Amino acid sequence: MNIIDIIVKKKNKEVLTKEEIEYAINSYLDGTVKDYQMSALLMAIVLNGMNMEETYYLTNVMLYSGDVNDLSEIKGDVVDKHSTGGVGDKTTLILGPILASMGLKMAKMSGRGLGHTGGTIDKLESIKGFKVELSRDEFIKEVNEIGMSVISQSGNIVPADKKLYQLRDVTGTTESIPLIASSIMSKKIASGSKNIIIDLKVGNGALMKDLDSARELAHYMIEIGKKFERNVVCVLTNMSEPLGKNIGNGLEVLESIDYLNGKASRDLKELITKLVTVAMKVSVGMSEDDAIKLMNEKINSGEALDKFKQFVKAQNGDIDNIEISSKMLQINSSKEGFLKSINTLKLGELARNLGAGRLSKEDEIDYGVGFVINKKVGDLILPGEELLKVYYNKKDIRIDEILSCFEVVEEPVLKQDIIIEVIGG
Amino acid sequence: MNIIDIIVKKKNKEVLTKEEIEYAINSYLDGTVKDYQMSALLMAIVLNGMNMEETYYLTNVMLYSGDVNDLSEIKGDVVDKHSTGGVGDKTTLILGPILASMGLKMAKMSGRGLGHTGGTIDKLESIKGFKVELSRDEFIKEVNEIGMSVISQSGNIVPADKKLYQLRDVTGTTESIPLIASSIMSKKIASGSKNIIIDLKVGNGALMKDLDSARELAHYMIEIGKKFERNVVCVLTNMSEPLGKNIGNGLEVLESIDYLNGKASRDLKELITKLVTVAMKVSVGMSEDDAIKLMNEKINSGEALDKFKQFVKAQNGDIDNIEISSKMLQINSSKEGFLKSINTLKLGELARNLGAGRLSKEDEIDYGVGFVINKKVGDLILPGEELLKVYYNKKDIRIDEILSCFEVVEEPVLKQDIIIEVIGG
Repeated sequence: MNIIDIIVKKKNKEVLTKEEIEYAINSYLDGTVKDYQMSALLMAIVLNGMNMEETYYLTNVMLYSGDVNDLSEIKGDVVDKHSTGGVGDKTTLILGPILASMGLKMAKMSGRGLGHTGGTIDKLESIKGFKVELSRDEFIKEVNEIGMSVISQSGNIVPADKKLYQLRDVTGTTESIPLIASSIMSKKIASGSKNIIIDLKVGNGALMKDLDSARELAHYMIEIGKKFERNVVCVLTNMSEPLGKNIGNGLEVLESIDYLNGKASRDLKELITKLVTVAMKVSVGMSEDDAIKLMNEKINSGEALDKFKQFVKAQNGDIDNIEISSKMLQINSSKEGFLKSINTLKLGELARNLGAGRLSKEDEIDYGVGFVINKKVGDLILPGEELLKVYYNKKDIRIDEILSCFEVVEEPVLKQDIIIEVIGG
Repeated sequence: MNIIDIIVKKKNKEVLTKEEIEYAINSYLDGTVKDYQMSALLMAIVLNGMNMEETYYLTNVMLYSGDVNDLSEIKGDVVDKHSTGGVGDKTTLILGPILASMGLKMAKMSGRGLGHTGGTIDKLESIKGFKVELSRDEFIKEVNEIGMSVISQSGNIVPADKKLYQLRDVTGTTESIPLIASSIMSKKIASGSKNIIIDLKVGNGALMKDLDSARELAHYMIEIGKKFERNVVCVLTNMSEPLGKNIGNGLEVLESIDYLNGKASRDLKELITKLVTVAMKVSVGMSEDDAIKLMNEKINSGEALDKFKQFVKAQNGDIDNIEISSKMLQINSSKEGFLKSINTLKLGELARNLGAGRLSKEDEIDYGVGFVINKKVGDLILPGEELLKVYYNKKDIRIDEILSCFEVVEEPVLKQDIIIEVIGG
């Protein structure tokens, strides 16, 4: 077999065989196929596509390029949640304790943040002492005893995806439904959970720019899931403003604790409620009404917050010692009117520039910095009213750039629903 | 400027600006843009195309990546001929002396063979003592005095094309009209001639598989020529069998001398005649009838052959000492019938395997080996009649493989015209 023939075949819009896809990926991993050949093949796939069968073969060869978790020692129904990346997205930290208090098990491997989106692992590390690396036995034990654990993704989970993703990132080949589907699904399947809920962000600045593409991606992921006997449900959500109020690692942990204490932003509550009902339905078949009722009981009784505390303690974290910068600047609106939009992508980048995220893998994170947003899209803003607080440390604050992310208009603006639709399940 | 944005733009079928094309090529040459980024851009160009303006910018930046010849010291009308690659293609060796005897000037830089096609420089080196490297002054002096010179292409003519071509060759990105047009035209314009005749081979095994693509490529090359004030004429020719009778370096020089002595194969004569008339028309406006009349006079009087002898002598070659292997094997047909087709690509590869060409740039050539074909498509073959002679040396001969290139059928077969059409001029 010859990589040039495979590239030319895809260039000519032909369907690749299982053997050809396996050859391309495995030879790329062993160095026989060069970066410049793989990037040509990737561009041909981006432009000419891959059908479901090809995407399944690609997922399969990537999956078996590294370790595949065996979660069979976990007693009960294991559920995993994946977000395609948002700003201020702390759902794992809230969903995990709620589901654990409701009897499900969340055995989660998470990544670090890169670019304008944060990573759950970074958020957890803002809690003093929190250990993100556990042995396999410790991980399984924690999930069985508490109902949840979140650890750093092992270096050998889907190494093919890691190598391919680094290449796609620098060759303009990120936007492709089969490539995205196989990348997400190979990692989710390798993580081991039977039930997989995907929070698929839609909109300008999100992975999927329009609803049709998001629906197609959901369809691919659900079908691939079936081939591996996994239940996949995609929750398509609107990413037109940051999720909740807080952006930044320590700040997002604080907002998660607030949530579990009953103090929730409307949009975050809408999303968490949907994710909880979907998780309960797909794993134990509970009705939406029953799930909401049970969820509210567990939050109101404090059981969900207790789960969060047990989880933090089990991983050596000190919940009373979350890093928040002592330097704070309140920015008030100079305009009067209604908040029409928040440039979410740019606000994420500004948070990263403050030190909340990384531009390159080597960058160090400043866990205490970030934004606390006081207004959501649709809110009325009075002149001089607080728009947001900036928690900063070493870096300069560009107030004009931050303000430019908030569009204030005279006419009233409707608040947007965060849930677009649920596919699968 | 950023290469990823440029790749994404072409991926999205947008038109690149002059500055973007210049940035991409120049940054690739200086190493800022990596092979894996250029190959992704090339695949996007192969699949989404480039308009005439983009192709012109690409040609221009490639042209000025290296030396550009100044032929202004040559007195008279300078004409250049380029073939997109054929098997048994010795037209330069015949056309040059004929045009020189008719008063034109051919100042030609040629390449070496690679793959299944031969190179004029290799053919000339089968003549003992022939020098393919001359100083600029020697080259200009020879053209002015004799009317022609053929030298090896300098290392610094369009280095961007060299680097790009090597990458395209291993990434399945060779088939693209804008990429081919800019590759050919940048080299032809750098070579310095005002009049450029392109022998564009069409057919299975040729650069252009179908007539529509060939016409589009011709259109691109003619338009780009205009922007550089060059007269470009494309002669579309059928490549369904080897050109003339002989394949192999020394053997092709012998056939060229035979031609100039008045002994010509029908197909070769048809092609040479068309190229001569096109050259005379585009450079001095001579009518086809007058050109043919003058050509025949120059061949019949021996003046054309004299030009060839003077040219060989001027470059230190001994025309009585052309390398031809002393080992010869005659292969007769086992079948009776009409020759329907010759697998030209395969026969070229078999000649290369005998030692007449190179698989890699480092391979040494055996100048004396090759084939002399006794039958052309449409010819009647009697049982036991000679099909071809094989001149060999060290390598094994695979008679079955050679025979498999010749398809003999019972029904009569029409001889094919070699000239399809002339575009431009």
